[in-house]
Amino acid sequence: MKLVTESVFETDAALSVYRSLLPEIESQVTDRSSIDLRPEGSYLYLTVEADDLVSMRSTLNTWLRLIQVALEVSALADNS
Amino acid sequence: MKLVTESVFETDAALSVYRSLLPEIESQVTDRSSIDLRPEGSYLYLTVEADDLVSMRSTLNTWLRLIQVALEVSALADNS
Repeated sequence: MKLVTESVFETDAALSVYRSLLPEIESQVTDRSSIDLRPEGSYLYLTVEADDLVSMRSTLNTWLRLIQVALEVSALADNS
Repeated sequence: MKLVTESVFETDAALSVYRSLLPEIESQVTDRSSIDLRPEGSYLYLTVEADDLVSMRSTLNTWLRLIQVALEVSALADNS
């Protein structure tokens, strides 16, 4: 079963979040799923492809958490 | 922050999964996120909109789990 999920985040921090997560993109460890992260203006696009629902859920959860942390750090940096 | 996630599942059970989850669609309980589930031939489209990443992750996880269970039940029914 082929699964594809695309998430769109509307945020001014799209580019800084993307840059901070570049090392994670380049060190992907599983062959059951793959991700693509792309900043476009004030939007950040996360695309996850997976062979099954279990790997889709775990990969999606990992990346939503990474993006959440990167957004929180970016917000802190803006306020300091 | 506006977040939208669209997941596409390639499965012959798209319509039966959709029908089995209709009651869940009609009884959505949170106002921080909303979902749409749509069968089209052998594809099932899940769209989740949320106001923040925390509600996106929990709603997405709930629905990916519901779909996973519905697919497993459908596969069992096919083999019986």
